[in-house]
Amino acid sequence: MVVSKSWTMVRHFEGVPKLEDFKLIEKTLPPLKDGELLLESEFLSVDPFMRPYSRRVLKEGDVMMGSQVARVVESKNPGFAVGDHVVARSGWTTHFISDGKGLQAIPSTWPESLPKSLTLGAVGMPGITAYVGVKQICDPKPGDVLLVNAAAGAVGSIVGQIAKIWGCKVVGSAGSDDKVEYLKEIGFDEAFNYKAVRCVAEALRKAAPEGYDCYFENVGGAFTIPALQQMKDFGRIAMCGLISSYNDPAPQTGPCIQSLIILKQLRMEGFLMYHYLDKPVCEEARRQLLLWIIEGKVKYREHISEGFEKMPAAFIGMLNGENTGKAIVKA
Amino acid sequence: MVVSKSWTMVRHFEGVPKLEDFKLIEKTLPPLKDGELLLESEFLSVDPFMRPYSRRVLKEGDVMMGSQVARVVESKNPGFAVGDHVVARSGWTTHFISDGKGLQAIPSTWPESLPKSLTLGAVGMPGITAYVGVKQICDPKPGDVLLVNAAAGAVGSIVGQIAKIWGCKVVGSAGSDDKVEYLKEIGFDEAFNYKAVRCVAEALRKAAPEGYDCYFENVGGAFTIPALQQMKDFGRIAMCGLISSYNDPAPQTGPCIQSLIILKQLRMEGFLMYHYLDKPVCEEARRQLLLWIIEGKVKYREHISEGFEKMPAAFIGMLNGENTGKAIVKA
Repeated sequence: MVVSKSWTMVRHFEGVPKLEDFKLIEKTLPPLKDGELLLESEFLSVDPFMRPYSRRVLKEGDVMMGSQVARVVESKNPGFAVGDHVVARSGWTTHFISDGKGLQAIPSTWPESLPKSLTLGAVGMPGITAYVGVKQICDPKPGDVLLVNAAAGAVGSIVGQIAKIWGCKVVGSAGSDDKVEYLKEIGFDEAFNYKAVRCVAEALRKAAPEGYDCYFENVGGAFTIPALQQMKDFGRIAMCGLISSYNDPAPQTGPCIQSLIILKQLRMEGFLMYHYLDKPVCEEARRQLLLWIIEGKVKYREHISEGFEKMPAAFIGMLNGENTGKAIVKA
Repeated sequence: MVVSKSWTMVRHFEGVPKLEDFKLIEKTLPPLKDGELLLESEFLSVDPFMRPYSRRVLKEGDVMMGSQVARVVESKNPGFAVGDHVVARSGWTTHFISDGKGLQAIPSTWPESLPKSLTLGAVGMPGITAYVGVKQICDPKPGDVLLVNAAAGAVGSIVGQIAKIWGCKVVGSAGSDDKVEYLKEIGFDEAFNYKAVRCVAEALRKAAPEGYDCYFENVGGAFTIPALQQMKDFGRIAMCGLISSYNDPAPQTGPCIQSLIILKQLRMEGFLMYHYLDKPVCEEARRQLLLWIIEGKVKYREHISEGFEKMPAAFIGMLNGENTGKAIVKA
């Protein structure tokens, strides 16, 4: 008899999520039926998208959504052996039963030197998001200037490194001096702490007086207008996230971006990584990112919280920008 | 000795342009030198873009910008004969001297049944704008639903008819019941008077409960959010104009559109027709639009003000939505 622990969302978040919005529950799992397997979460992911999406896909009392790296601990499914590792999307839970569908096997050839948690980060959803957004939407040419914000985060840090590999000048904005230092370590040409500069517009101009060809948007809010003002004509904008607004109680209002889009003839495209899951570019991204990491061309960092009981705190801390690189919980 | 009259902009517009912002001046033109020609404006164009662009390209006291159909009245240039007609971009002026550069000849094969003023409208800048925006940005497939606002205007009325020819269901918004009637006459599937409906969002839902694949934006302001909310996923938006804001003293603020762009994975592209002037699509548009008009597949209407002295009033009236179809001044 296995007891599974899960974190539920007891009420929809209002403003900044609070520890009281979550509740730990326990449940005894039934014995496996034929075709089923029992999995134990080893690493769990906390991601920005969970904040806006919880209201769309969860009811109060549901287990929080999310992915994990899990190990097969018992199997009555010929496709999976005990000890195999998979990426699952089973929410914030320690143990779960699966019929095998929707599990993504981590191949036995996975390099021993690399943590399997990378399949939740640089080689997983955030890395693929970065790859797709840069390649399909920003579409940079060598010599282009690319801007990314939340640049030290799970997506932004990969965005910048991919753009460097493809010959761009890369400028990153992040929320602390330590993060800025990290960005310089991993090869960003210019980086600034948006909380410490006198004026974002000035920092953007200083970092790239020639203007920006590409803008990978993770943040929104007050960052967007000065960024758009610094775009070159015909610039491309990958609209990936708006983390500055996720805790806002009401839809954001502010200066309209439409006239800048027209005057500069910009192309702006919103995208959700899940749409690419069954597209060839997704597998291409996974393969390429893993290769670049093995070759040392893409560096990664993980911000690991130890203990399943830390999940709500890790989630709240990630939304508050405490992580450099990918925020992960080790169960 | 020829005396040329011109309308100058004596001060930059603040809010709605006023008659006092313009001044009629006269100037005696010098005799022609070799290679030059003297032209007389027959039709002049007043267009929405002149409102926002005047501040960018004119100094106070400059002749107002704009295009005209002009007739050659004297020529010392072997490329042009007396009686030839051209489209010029010489501003609000009755007579002018040119060296021939930048003049676009109206071919002698121009159909006698069609007014040459169409080269300022349905077969000119507004028509080409419509063609480029629909083809290159909205990129509609047969069966797609396309929304256009300021739909009875010089651009919008052509947008809708092109989309119909290419197999779309077309919905138009306009500012009077007469305009709505005109839209139905020229084949729009659905049209509504946005000033008379209780709620634009409701009118948009009623016109196309299935949602919109394409949105050709001429208006901006309060129209945009309900329109984006009714877009289908992966919708394409041609950002052409924001006439609702051109007279605003300050940059517009309002609800941010960014989260809708992400959630619906929309692609939004700003474009300025002048960028396409030297591209093959421009000549293709001109040829195709003229053919469609001859075949009766595209209908046009002109809102003609008689007399060069009426130019400021025609411009102000056009900004106020008095025109159905293209606003033209007959000199």
